[in-house]
Amino acid sequence: MALLSFKHASKIIYCIASVSSFAPHRSYASTAARASLKMTATATSSAPLTLEEHSAAYKELLDKLRTITHLNHASSVLNYDRSVFMSSSERTSLARGKQLAVLATIAHEKATDPQLGKLIDQATADLQQLSSTCPNDPTNNEDLTTAKRILELEKRSFTKSTCIPVELAAHKASLEASAYSAWVKARETDDFASFAPSLKDCFDTAKKIAELQRGDNKDIGLYSQMLDEFEMGMPEERIDALFQEVQDALVPFIAKIRGSENAPSLEPLKGSFPIDAQKSVSQKIVKAIGFDESHGRIDVSVHPFTMSLSNADVRITSRFSESEWYQGLAGSVHEAGHAMYEQHLGDSDLGLDSALSMGVHESQSLFWERHVGLSRPFYRWARPILTEAFGKDDKFDYSAEEIYNAVNGVDFENNLIRVEADELNYPLHVILRYNIERAVVAGELDVNDIPAEWNKSMKEFFAIDVPNDTKGCLQDIHWSCLAIGYFPTYLLGSMMAAQLSHYCKKDLPEFDNLIEKGEFTPIREWLTEKVHKHGKRYASLDDLLVAEVGEKLNSKYFIDYLTEKYSDLYKI
Amino acid sequence: MALLSFKHASKIIYCIASVSSFAPHRSYASTAARASLKMTATATSSAPLTLEEHSAAYKELLDKLRTITHLNHASSVLNYDRSVFMSSSERTSLARGKQLAVLATIAHEKATDPQLGKLIDQATADLQQLSSTCPNDPTNNEDLTTAKRILELEKRSFTKSTCIPVELAAHKASLEASAYSAWVKARETDDFASFAPSLKDCFDTAKKIAELQRGDNKDIGLYSQMLDEFEMGMPEERIDALFQEVQDALVPFIAKIRGSENAPSLEPLKGSFPIDAQKSVSQKIVKAIGFDESHGRIDVSVHPFTMSLSNADVRITSRFSESEWYQGLAGSVHEAGHAMYEQHLGDSDLGLDSALSMGVHESQSLFWERHVGLSRPFYRWARPILTEAFGKDDKFDYSAEEIYNAVNGVDFENNLIRVEADELNYPLHVILRYNIERAVVAGELDVNDIPAEWNKSMKEFFAIDVPNDTKGCLQDIHWSCLAIGYFPTYLLGSMMAAQLSHYCKKDLPEFDNLIEKGEFTPIREWLTEKVHKHGKRYASLDDLLVAEVGEKLNSKYFIDYLTEKYSDLYKI
Repeated sequence: MALLSFKHASKIIYCIASVSSFAPHRSYASTAARASLKMTATATSSAPLTLEEHSAAYKELLDKLRTITHLNHASSVLNYDRSVFMSSSERTSLARGKQLAVLATIAHEKATDPQLGKLIDQATADLQQLSSTCPNDPTNNEDLTTAKRILELEKRSFTKSTCIPVELAAHKASLEASAYSAWVKARETDDFASFAPSLKDCFDTAKKIAELQRGDNKDIGLYSQMLDEFEMGMPEERIDALFQEVQDALVPFIAKIRGSENAPSLEPLKGSFPIDAQKSVSQKIVKAIGFDESHGRIDVSVHPFTMSLSNADVRITSRFSESEWYQGLAGSVHEAGHAMYEQHLGDSDLGLDSALSMGVHESQSLFWERHVGLSRPFYRWARPILTEAFGKDDKFDYSAEEIYNAVNGVDFENNLIRVEADELNYPLHVILRYNIERAVVAGELDVNDIPAEWNKSMKEFFAIDVPNDTKGCLQDIHWSCLAIGYFPTYLLGSMMAAQLSHYCKKDLPEFDNLIEKGEFTPIREWLTEKVHKHGKRYASLDDLLVAEVGEKLNSKYFIDYLTEKYSDLYKI
Repeated sequence: MALLSFKHASKIIYCIASVSSFAPHRSYASTAARASLKMTATATSSAPLTLEEHSAAYKELLDKLRTITHLNHASSVLNYDRSVFMSSSERTSLARGKQLAVLATIAHEKATDPQLGKLIDQATADLQQLSSTCPNDPTNNEDLTTAKRILELEKRSFTKSTCIPVELAAHKASLEASAYSAWVKARETDDFASFAPSLKDCFDTAKKIAELQRGDNKDIGLYSQMLDEFEMGMPEERIDALFQEVQDALVPFIAKIRGSENAPSLEPLKGSFPIDAQKSVSQKIVKAIGFDESHGRIDVSVHPFTMSLSNADVRITSRFSESEWYQGLAGSVHEAGHAMYEQHLGDSDLGLDSALSMGVHESQSLFWERHVGLSRPFYRWARPILTEAFGKDDKFDYSAEEIYNAVNGVDFENNLIRVEADELNYPLHVILRYNIERAVVAGELDVNDIPAEWNKSMKEFFAIDVPNDTKGCLQDIHWSCLAIGYFPTYLLGSMMAAQLSHYCKKDLPEFDNLIEKGEFTPIREWLTEKVHKHGKRYASLDDLLVAEVGEKLNSKYFIDYLTEKYSDLYKI
């Protein structure tokens, strides 16, 4: 699975990786299966049976699921090679496309094989039988609890994969290609009207799919069903309430900051910074914060991304531009945050040991990018590295405070494009898109009225006039890939990062000191304890936070973080 | 499929890629299938039907075969990445191993699917029917001739894949692993006796497999059957006769050269040559001779090899060492020769458009490495490139003639190791191994007597005393991988390269001038016409040569090339 860093793409064209299944990684040495189908009824003798020992169906199921994992990972290898190493000639690309199509077809066949569904049901029945015979045995509980969660996840995944009739799946596949082309063309010529029919088809198709996926459960709203694909267990009402709090706090606050005359100097960002020096700085820093290069790689590509070829082989790419140094570094740190999550997942090679959600994933990248990488202590630590790389002939003679101010300065003039927005403005860019998506899915907003609504919100949120649709509602790829319900995860991740930062500092009061000394391991280990190692064991981001830090997602941490920080920076 | 350059591995440990199936490459736009199962009987109207239009079985067969091609290529991507880019940590390797195992299992299932056999038979019947109804139509002939060859190749391949019972296949797989380990250990401790039982098992298993593969056809000797795997259509008797001629000519000739006092100075080879400069020289040269970097890549790895990830994506690796410049360049040119063959195969994505054999492949690499890359005009062309790269402060101030002499100088002192041997001694290294393999398979030589036989031959051929088995019969990996019958292809390739060189110069009398001017394209195009584009259309290396240059493989070209060249170099 690839996670793409939209924030740090210099170009507006970028791709979303498939988000439908997180493929976990490591192989796992299972205990020797005794192959008995019945539990030996004994009160005294050997250790209690695991489900894998008790249930032949479960054992067979796990084997099939792991095969699918390995197939998906093989596809990732081909995808990574295509993005980073392969020549871009047409014949070369065509051949690679055929290879990927064959792998995808086989993986799909295996994932939708009715036999898989039967095994899930049989294993579930076997689990119930085993649980009822030894309900109080503590040794068995962890294995059975885990098995229960595995079966839940796989049941849900199987149902989703198989509820789409072939014609609808074919229409979706074809639409993804045609809508993408239409979007590219519309952007090039600033012609929303030419894209509108495809866009309507994208929304309609996504709704049809959501309708099938929710099945008989009409309690789940359509948009909630769509959101669940990217952020499980966080329905529309929950997100709506959180986003309203953020919107209410930030619109006036941003207006206030915008009016300040105390903008920090951006001079330390400007100049000429050799790409090799930037690469070297980035590599040094991502390894220092904890990216494990012995189980991964650092490369360069057109758009930064993270991709797991297995959880023991997590690769990140960066992109650098000579005219500035911060974006390249920020992108690297962001991807490293994603990668450290993947690198510290469990090793079952099952969905259980994959990232909980896109939002949780984004909390990891933004934790490092912002709460570490935009902090004062970080620049006290990093300054010598930056000065050594860029400071020949005193060309980079800035204090840590000056650098801190510059990287956090907000560019209010150029605030049209989400992926280029700073952390203060970014939330409203996301809320704008969330509001529009929600309204279109609810039938409250017509697709043809998207540009007007977009521009109205940009004015309301930022006092900005959108000059054309290319720089307005045509800037993002997501809807043309039918990724409707994806946008909110960026803000949920931002909010979760701030909450984690708060609680991490509670557990590690020496947080700032650790960063200043370049001792990042305790921080990364805290995140592994609280987030990474749990994979998909929790039902939602909220459940994870309640269990691990004692409180569900609360917007105040995010709002306080931004208001305190920018009040200080802008001296208001 | 990877072709590994044994000659240029600096270390003795190296790997043989799977040789059992050549996976061809390019996708191919088939004409719209009319899906009719019967030929429309008409004398006047539309163009005659192709087999694909006439036979639903053939169409389905091609689709299945291409799927297998794409799967095999996907495995190559994973293998290439593993060899060149992937971290070497244990967990990383384990995970990649599982992915490869899944792909291999699926490819094997598809290749041995009984349905495939039925489709081949039905398509063959449909072909006969179609041929009988329009025997004289020239337009149809090419398509039908091609289809006939495709079906022949696939029938043979299917029969070979399916004649091995599961237990034997499992034993072979397990033996490949255990024999390899035993070989590595035996080499480390110079203990042939510890390896002998595994080695015997390798020969016995290979013989069992050959027995099954030849089926009822007892006319084919077992060793001929094994040879056919690597060099189709060249039985033991043919190879025996050719090799005897070479042995008879070279043993005395080498003795004469060895006695000469006019050894060329090797000084131009020695010194310190920065790796980056060597990389740059190699890249420049391989691209100049015709390696198409827009449909491939040039990397560095532990052992040089060529691997096709599709025929539009052919990758070569090189290896450099600071203390000398020639081996790294020779390795690159050698791999580029292999690669240009792959890059100019046809685009059906079927076995038809894969390399004819290992021997023909080697003729391509050696043509460029020796007949171009060891020639006087080549050094007249290359000298400025070498001098610019290595010649700072007059450190590389040699004439083209001095460089020519040095690269062709023979090291008679250090002539124990095949992969390090020069072109003059190399043939006898191959013949030594051929003689032993043949004798063991025939039951004339016991595995335990291999060291004695080896050492006796080394004395007879080279007047060399082998100090230990590590530098003697334990030096090559092949037998421990059950690649018995592989060695002869190196010498067949050498001989074919010399014959091609002779005929190329006949068709292009300006051959030397072209090289001296760096105009390699006409030469590469001649090879494409004579060899590359034919894929597996010919039944053997001999048939290809008869059809394309008018004469089957004739040892005189090779013998004359060596005797004339080295008589001149050593002034005898």
